[in-house]
Amino acid sequence: MPEFLTLLPPDEARALLLSHLPRTITASERVDVRSALGRVLAEDVIAPQPLPDFQRSTVDGYAIRAQDTHGASDSLPAYLSLIGEVPMGDRPAFAISAGQCALIHTGGMLPEGTDAVVMLEYTQPAGRDEIEILRAVADGENVIGIGEDVAQGEIVIARGSLIRPAEIGGLMALGITKVNVVRKVQVGLISTGDEVIEPDHAPRPGQVRDVNSYTLGALIEKSGGMAELYGIVSDDFGVLKDTAAVALDKCDVVIITAGSSASTRDRTAEVIRSLGEPGVLVHGVNTRPGKPTILGVCNGKAVIGLPGNPVSALVNGYLFVVPVIEKLLGVQPKPRPTMRARLAVNLSSQAGREDWWPVKLTKETRSQKESQTSPPGVSPSSDARFLAEPVFGKSNLIFTLAAADGLLRIDPDATGISAGETVEVFLL
Amino acid sequence: MPEFLTLLPPDEARALLLSHLPRTITASERVDVRSALGRVLAEDVIAPQPLPDFQRSTVDGYAIRAQDTHGASDSLPAYLSLIGEVPMGDRPAFAISAGQCALIHTGGMLPEGTDAVVMLEYTQPAGRDEIEILRAVADGENVIGIGEDVAQGEIVIARGSLIRPAEIGGLMALGITKVNVVRKVQVGLISTGDEVIEPDHAPRPGQVRDVNSYTLGALIEKSGGMAELYGIVSDDFGVLKDTAAVALDKCDVVIITAGSSASTRDRTAEVIRSLGEPGVLVHGVNTRPGKPTILGVCNGKAVIGLPGNPVSALVNGYLFVVPVIEKLLGVQPKPRPTMRARLAVNLSSQAGREDWWPVKLTKETRSQKESQTSPPGVSPSSDARFLAEPVFGKSNLIFTLAAADGLLRIDPDATGISAGETVEVFLL
Repeated sequence: MPEFLTLLPPDEARALLLSHLPRTITASERVDVRSALGRVLAEDVIAPQPLPDFQRSTVDGYAIRAQDTHGASDSLPAYLSLIGEVPMGDRPAFAISAGQCALIHTGGMLPEGTDAVVMLEYTQPAGRDEIEILRAVADGENVIGIGEDVAQGEIVIARGSLIRPAEIGGLMALGITKVNVVRKVQVGLISTGDEVIEPDHAPRPGQVRDVNSYTLGALIEKSGGMAELYGIVSDDFGVLKDTAAVALDKCDVVIITAGSSASTRDRTAEVIRSLGEPGVLVHGVNTRPGKPTILGVCNGKAVIGLPGNPVSALVNGYLFVVPVIEKLLGVQPKPRPTMRARLAVNLSSQAGREDWWPVKLTKETRSQKESQTSPPGVSPSSDARFLAEPVFGKSNLIFTLAAADGLLRIDPDATGISAGETVEVFLL
Repeated sequence: MPEFLTLLPPDEARALLLSHLPRTITASERVDVRSALGRVLAEDVIAPQPLPDFQRSTVDGYAIRAQDTHGASDSLPAYLSLIGEVPMGDRPAFAISAGQCALIHTGGMLPEGTDAVVMLEYTQPAGRDEIEILRAVADGENVIGIGEDVAQGEIVIARGSLIRPAEIGGLMALGITKVNVVRKVQVGLISTGDEVIEPDHAPRPGQVRDVNSYTLGALIEKSGGMAELYGIVSDDFGVLKDTAAVALDKCDVVIITAGSSASTRDRTAEVIRSLGEPGVLVHGVNTRPGKPTILGVCNGKAVIGLPGNPVSALVNGYLFVVPVIEKLLGVQPKPRPTMRARLAVNLSSQAGREDWWPVKLTKETRSQKESQTSPPGVSPSSDARFLAEPVFGKSNLIFTLAAADGLLRIDPDATGISAGETVEVFLL
């Protein structure tokens, strides 16, 4: 008989698993900043020099001494003598004295003696080498001071930061072209089931191709991990245990996608118990899909048993595998964005259970004309609305997910959501 | 004097640009499905066989003929004789006749003669080789029929689909291990400005390192493009024109990040006009940052001039470059997810102008305890709230963006947003 499961709420199950994984990966590798997109910084980056390291103009205009413009206005301009033009990318060869000014472009270096810039719009040429200043400027106006972006010695990007385009730009601005990033999390994947075959084999009647190694492999890759495939293992305790032990030795995390029957799920739990302490922490999570998910830790490493059903395995990969990878990377957890949508139909749920429904999003437009002129890739404005339609599949087949844009969550406290209610959808 | 700009609303500017780019890239390349994550399908994928291609049980139980369970209940069970067990991954060697049943596991193939499965929970062994059936089942109950996931010949994933983990799974389930994807969009990047130097050079006073080639390069890579760097070109019409012509010949899109002064921006427009018809479509967009953005098309290819300011260049990269890449890839536009947050301070804006503010998101927790038990990487529930704090930077310096989690949009119709209002934030 299969084991009787005591179902834990998913948030509690996840917290329990993560609390047994205190260590983050300390090993790092040195990579070129240009290929560091999506990696996690393994060290604090400290500014080796201030940025900018010279006083820069933020406008096109005239570099001046602010006090020379005191009281200047349209009706009572100040008159300054023009002594030159600041070259771009070089230190001006001249200094400015009282009553003088120099033409300067955005990004130009302020000449010695000046402390502000008056915008071109508030000036007027007044005969040969003389400029009318029509507005007073304050000390420092239209100027970025030395170190105003970052000061020398400041931590500009902290350890655990995800490297996005902006971080790449910041590193380049400081002349930092190589950086230490956390080694990718190695995740070993084992598929079980006597009915499962490799995707490039032709199935005999009764056989199905392995899907979970590849969906989970892609999810792991997206999340900062590296999938190591240990292939398909038959429904035999000894063989599964041996394969899992090899994977556990080499990888940071091991995932076993169980065959679909109850007996093979129980075998996964047995194997996890045999691999090390504390073993199985959670056997059964109160979600749909995903009830038979097993969460364990063996000698400091997470070992997770996921249901064999492809939708269930992938949804529970998002819920449990991604957080483990993020914890091991030591990455600052970032909020997960969602789409707000109007639910198309009533969805019922069992109280106490968290449901995840694959949904398709379609844009709700007020008129056909509007939808035609709406260009692709446009950030929707805050009043843009989507319609969320659940993709129903009898047994959560893989093409249910391929047809879906995201997952809709139904809170454990809810017994359902009514058609027309606004819901939040997590994009797949 | 600099040109006088007629500012176009960003949505209108983008639509005008895209309307001049009717062609999508037709060239494709054949890749292994395992390395196709994030690519775009160049062909409809048609199911070579039905899925599943045999009748599968969705539960653990007994394969039966539904009519044999007619009227069965706890008080009046049906009795069936057990003639065997269905092996996993193989066709059962026996057929079932009236009054017979066979043990079957989830995923097992239904024996000939059966049309439904009764769950183990509703059965009871009744002596040697006899099973009590405590509930009636209908024809097809707990069974996935042949082709119920996908039918043979059905288009299962359409051309233009983005390949996500679920699509990889679907392809593997069908035994499709190689697939044609659209060639990556080649985007040529040219930086201009006499003050700009390569990041690995030490700046002299007045010089700054190139940032935009790398932030935009990373954004392009994230969006399905491939950045081709044409380096830093001096503020000279002839040199810029020659470089842009070479880039235009080789690439699908060319981006020129202008030096920061008005004169170099005008030079970009001049170059775009000289490269082909229709030339400059938009010179000036009513956004902040990004006002001096130039959108052009030369002989069917987009040529875009972005402001030199790093924040401005990156924000306008999201607004104009990403949609061009998506259009060329022919990708089905997907909704862009956002985070909802409560604005921390008042933000004012000029009516008619669309503002994009870099903001930092922090989780608003009701108690400290709650924030401690909140595990990383957890999908926030619908009532989780974030606080959005604008990252103020005098001149939108690059570390303003590195410190930000996302961009907050202020609608052109609004003159501002009050502290405490709920806003939508696009993650960077």
